[in-house]
Amino acid sequence: MKNSFGTNVIVTLFGESHGQQIGVVIDGLAPGLEVNDDFINSQLAKRRPSGKISTSRVEMDEYQIVSGVVNGLTTGTPICILIPNTNTKSSDYEKLKTVPRPGHADYTACCKYHGFQDPRGGGHFSGRITAPLVAAGAIAIDALAKKGIVIGSHIARCAGVDDKKIMGSNLAVDNDELKKTLAKLNEADFALIDDSVKSAMIEKMEAAAAEGDSVGGVLETAIAGLPAGIGEPWFDTFESVMSHMLFSVPAIKGVEFGDGFAMTDMMGSQSNDSFYMDGDKVKTKTNHNGGINGGITNGMPVVFSCAVKPTPSIYKKQDSVNLKEGKNEELVIEGRHDPAIIHRARVVVDSVVALVLVDMLSGRYGTDYLAD
Amino acid sequence: MKNSFGTNVIVTLFGESHGQQIGVVIDGLAPGLEVNDDFINSQLAKRRPSGKISTSRVEMDEYQIVSGVVNGLTTGTPICILIPNTNTKSSDYEKLKTVPRPGHADYTACCKYHGFQDPRGGGHFSGRITAPLVAAGAIAIDALAKKGIVIGSHIARCAGVDDKKIMGSNLAVDNDELKKTLAKLNEADFALIDDSVKSAMIEKMEAAAAEGDSVGGVLETAIAGLPAGIGEPWFDTFESVMSHMLFSVPAIKGVEFGDGFAMTDMMGSQSNDSFYMDGDKVKTKTNHNGGINGGITNGMPVVFSCAVKPTPSIYKKQDSVNLKEGKNEELVIEGRHDPAIIHRARVVVDSVVALVLVDMLSGRYGTDYLAD
Amino acid sequence: MKNSFGTNVIVTLFGESHGQQIGVVIDGLAPGLEVNDDFINSQLAKRRPSGKISTSRVEMDEYQIVSGVVNGLTTGTPICILIPNTNTKSSDYEKLKTVPRPGHADYTACCKYHGFQDPRGGGHFSGRITAPLVAAGAIAIDALAKKGIVIGSHIARCAGVDDKKIMGSNLAVDNDELKKTLAKLNEADFALIDDSVKSAMIEKMEAAAAEGDSVGGVLETAIAGLPAGIGEPWFDTFESVMSHMLFSVPAIKGVEFGDGFAMTDMMGSQSNDSFYMDGDKVKTKTNHNGGINGGITNGMPVVFSCAVKPTPSIYKKQDSVNLKEGKNEELVIEGRHDPAIIHRARVVVDSVVALVLVDMLSGRYGTDYLAD
Amino acid sequence: MKNSFGTNVIVTLFGESHGQQIGVVIDGLAPGLEVNDDFINSQLAKRRPSGKISTSRVEMDEYQIVSGVVNGLTTGTPICILIPNTNTKSSDYEKLKTVPRPGHADYTACCKYHGFQDPRGGGHFSGRITAPLVAAGAIAIDALAKKGIVIGSHIARCAGVDDKKIMGSNLAVDNDELKKTLAKLNEADFALIDDSVKSAMIEKMEAAAAEGDSVGGVLETAIAGLPAGIGEPWFDTFESVMSHMLFSVPAIKGVEFGDGFAMTDMMGSQSNDSFYMDGDKVKTKTNHNGGINGGITNGMPVVFSCAVKPTPSIYKKQDSVNLKEGKNEELVIEGRHDPAIIHRARVVVDSVVALVLVDMLSGRYGTDYLAD
Repeated sequence: MKNSFGTNVIVTLFGESHGQQIGVVIDGLAPGLEVNDDFINSQLAKRRPSGKISTSRVEMDEYQIVSGVVNGLTTGTPICILIPNTNTKSSDYEKLKTVPRPGHADYTACCKYHGFQDPRGGGHFSGRITAPLVAAGAIAIDALAKKGIVIGSHIARCAGVDDKKIMGSNLAVDNDELKKTLAKLNEADFALIDDSVKSAMIEKMEAAAAEGDSVGGVLETAIAGLPAGIGEPWFDTFESVMSHMLFSVPAIKGVEFGDGFAMTDMMGSQSNDSFYMDGDKVKTKTNHNGGINGGITNGMPVVFSCAVKPTPSIYKKQDSVNLKEGKNEELVIEGRHDPAIIHRARVVVDSVVALVLVDMLSGRYGTDYLAD
Repeated sequence: MKNSFGTNVIVTLFGESHGQQIGVVIDGLAPGLEVNDDFINSQLAKRRPSGKISTSRVEMDEYQIVSGVVNGLTTGTPICILIPNTNTKSSDYEKLKTVPRPGHADYTACCKYHGFQDPRGGGHFSGRITAPLVAAGAIAIDALAKKGIVIGSHIARCAGVDDKKIMGSNLAVDNDELKKTLAKLNEADFALIDDSVKSAMIEKMEAAAAEGDSVGGVLETAIAGLPAGIGEPWFDTFESVMSHMLFSVPAIKGVEFGDGFAMTDMMGSQSNDSFYMDGDKVKTKTNHNGGINGGITNGMPVVFSCAVKPTPSIYKKQDSVNLKEGKNEELVIEGRHDPAIIHRARVVVDSVVALVLVDMLSGRYGTDYLAD
Repeated sequence: MKNSFGTNVIVTLFGESHGQQIGVVIDGLAPGLEVNDDFINSQLAKRRPSGKISTSRVEMDEYQIVSGVVNGLTTGTPICILIPNTNTKSSDYEKLKTVPRPGHADYTACCKYHGFQDPRGGGHFSGRITAPLVAAGAIAIDALAKKGIVIGSHIARCAGVDDKKIMGSNLAVDNDELKKTLAKLNEADFALIDDSVKSAMIEKMEAAAAEGDSVGGVLETAIAGLPAGIGEPWFDTFESVMSHMLFSVPAIKGVEFGDGFAMTDMMGSQSNDSFYMDGDKVKTKTNHNGGINGGITNGMPVVFSCAVKPTPSIYKKQDSVNLKEGKNEELVIEGRHDPAIIHRARVVVDSVVALVLVDMLSGRYGTDYLAD
Repeated sequence: MKNSFGTNVIVTLFGESHGQQIGVVIDGLAPGLEVNDDFINSQLAKRRPSGKISTSRVEMDEYQIVSGVVNGLTTGTPICILIPNTNTKSSDYEKLKTVPRPGHADYTACCKYHGFQDPRGGGHFSGRITAPLVAAGAIAIDALAKKGIVIGSHIARCAGVDDKKIMGSNLAVDNDELKKTLAKLNEADFALIDDSVKSAMIEKMEAAAAEGDSVGGVLETAIAGLPAGIGEPWFDTFESVMSHMLFSVPAIKGVEFGDGFAMTDMMGSQSNDSFYMDGDKVKTKTNHNGGINGGITNGMPVVFSCAVKPTPSIYKKQDSVNLKEGKNEELVIEGRHDPAIIHRARVVVDSVVALVLVDMLSGRYGTDYLAD
């Protein structure tokens, strides 16, 4: 489906970093859902760069909803959200089609689009394009919250500094406790469970920035309150559909559910999550499987982690090639860049997770489910 | 799409572990491709259990191709492959709908299908259902090989024992060298780059089996010879589509491309793969990104790893619940099970990777590409 | 999607006229639906040829359901239905790849599949392939009936002889009356509203058969009891999705909803269907629009007609070409053929209509709707 | 897929008649295609109302392409085209959610969207929404023309007045002659093969307008130069996919291919199109099947007809209901309306046909086909 995603609620993304407008169409959302501009703006603000750990290009993201919403309520027909690009400096990017930046899509875009792609600011591949996804995701997050489903992410590790984890803690087995923590994360500017590590983490990020270098990290995301029974056996397991969406977020190079790679060193007797009755509810004592068995949710918190690679835009001299002349050429990147994007990426991840969930839930329970 | 996958070449999977027949339909393969029964049988043999590290249920997998192939050549219309289930002992599974096995899909299947699912042997969730995928994948692997595209996997780590890795070695940056190694892996019964670790690994697996327990591991998979330019920016990045399929293989709980989670501790200056000219070809000096930039292949080897959790079927006593009576109940699993499946899973992974690739390549270059 | 159809309930069709087995996979049906073998067999019997107005090739259609059904109830996982081909005489068709039959797919299959297609009996293009669709459709028809939704078709015109019509009669505006008529049609061997025209119609069909020629006709189909609100504004209007499926039934060359082409000679003041209250129900006085406004059902009977062309298999000498020698060549078709298929096609149409409806309704109301 | 259409080239439509902007996203077009603003404007002009036979609401359709095009060439990434609504008089429509207009989507939209839909001017159901489709279609028409594929439509019948027909004439069997005629039609304001019937036809249309009534008609469309081998056997036959799209154009209630419904009164010996060699090309002597056999194009002109019902917006008093009060109520429609839309619809039909063709051809021959 290329630049669209979803079966029953479908998201279509368009635009380039330095083009006129970027935007998204969300189709299939139930009619009658509230569209809360304050919340959309607060989500966009979390994605917006700030301080020394972000690019100096700041866009105010003055989005416009041009269809699908009347009097602040969804109509049930496609919602198009537009965001203009205003703060562009395109001259910085002239060379990108000739001398591709390592770690970026410049070269692969040439292979795919034969040089016709828009190279300015990474064009359609830019992280800038996630802004409309965040706006769309905000509507979905809001609708899910009204059904008791809460999503949140934190920076589990960045630049070698660890936050506390959801996995392995009581949060992974207690939807109610988890909701409180996610609520706190969702209000924070810099999403950490343990705020005491914040200064150390930011210090390391700024140090990388000062050197013209960049850092990556791990986002840990959780969903509290999701019903059991969501997902398909083949090939649309919960993990399949979620990872599909997550791996389309720029810079994500790994996704694991529950204990993921750490499970590979366990014995089955350790990694199996035993069942028990909590009143009339079936729960698991541990949650190594991240709330998913056989590709289907089991009603426990859903937890997964994403590896976010260091941003490829660095100011250090790098080796590249001149595609026109067919020879090696050194490259020093100019322009404005992020020495880290993980603190901005978390709201993008929450947004796409919400978009996946509204699709899955609408498929399972019908198109009006979110509004009921 | 539930139990179907693909856009231009579509795979549909059906059947239950103890049902009459399991099978697959592959639609959209180019007409005129050879269907090599010897190769299909050799792939099925690799998936078949053997020795103490596998279940004692052995099926001969006498597949039948009932449509889409005439005189050993694909017709271009849907290919249906059937495999009968013969060696079933269904009485072992009576209790599964009442007392779900931890780590299995028994409970989530109940949530989704309200108890109407076939519980025998895990029903439609069973690893048994991967047999037709392997048969279908064999046709795809064969067709790709004729285009110079080779896929292979090895057990990078199992039960705490490591094999040598493709990532970090010369194999990750040299398609030709990689092809030789993959050819060797594809002929092996037990896929290791460094055969000297085999006895240690199997010893640990057998030890787990002896205790009625199970082990997991990491599969590292590589694709040599894949053209640059395959994948979409959003939302069908190469990683997205591939992980979607991989996460539908039972027991896979993590997927990472290139250095994946290890990239999160690198600086951008380390993780960026510099370009250079090798004659008239653009290559990268390192391959931390696993042959993919911006979601699109760059012509270097594509490398990724999958976390395979320990098989949940263990013989130890486990805590579970009685769903009918709504109370806790201990469970001892009977039947025949695998103390490890990673050595069998690798051919499943290769097969689904091949099915994803034929879909992507047919979409990119047209429906006749594989036959040209 | 090639040989698959549907979004939430997906049908995949495979097989060739003279291949080993033909079959269908239906995925996404709610768990717990009854599978009534008697009804499936009675539907297959209606499709089966009989008498002088059909081919002399008669298959008993001994279908097997090899997955997705346990103890006569759907499991919720994919249902595969297989039908073996037994009564094949393939030598009749040797020439078809060289000298294509006019009006058939022989030539276009060559263009598409480059001669690798299975030519025997029309291969994958044969009307024979509709048998598994009828079996699958029977399950859907049964499930819909339990929700009060009834489908039926009759031969509105054949060989120049007219039956009474639903459109223009009281049946088009009265769901209850319509249900009675559809029930009668569904029990008939030869589906007519006015049985007094039967002998005239069959006489004309037999006359064509006697001359080695063939006839076509018009099927009029109605759905009673369908809820209002089914369909999408763009591009999945009710008409769009239904016609998509109908035009894949061999020999259908025209589809019209309500008065269709006859509406083009009306004035708007005639073709608009006025609303009125019948108790607390909104109804329309007339039903020129066939129960659909703006692509969405309005709760009135849905009525449409399909043009079924004369079967292209005739015994008269025809002009064709020899594709190998690149020259004109006369052709006399041998083998066993139908001088008319409209009386057999009606159950195919009912079946595919049912499959479309279960897809649409499951999308609208959720995956469990049919079982609730 | 709701408001999206296509597999390899996907169109997504959004907007409401009186909303801020209406628009379309086209994804999957080959990179490097020319985007000709003059041609887009000329196509939009053909769709624009004019004279007494159209609504008095005239929009200048000043479209903006905000993504996917750089320097007049497609980039290969999604193209978003926006058209602002400027000339809206929304007060006319206040009553539509309470007293639905017969023949319109007002009532069915209420059933589907529970009253949250935008009622102004028909909202998302309005023919106004076809404007961006025409802009998108223009790019596709242009690209197809460069591959020698030409599309055109004419008003075969309107208000009881007939034009000459393509079917039955030499145009149906001669791609070259057909191209000349289509070129003439495509330059005309009012598309007729035989201009001598123009005044009679317009007179009748104006007469209907004068009475506050409306008329419908039949559009006959042809495609010249389409390669053989396009379409799938099941369920994506050429007719299936094309009719799916055509039936989503408002007011189309019937579609027939070739002689369609007229074939039902032929004998097989008449309706079969005999093959012959024209030099080294295989052609058919007649073209009753409209260039399609077994759902796949045969290289002859593709010809089909669409029934366009009278526009439902009439000024005469009509019977309706008051949905809030649950009682009958008479309705006199105000606002500005079209007494006929067939002369405007033809460019919409050509546009959607072109969008279907670029999807099918890109699927068949690969994503770069149109640019090669």
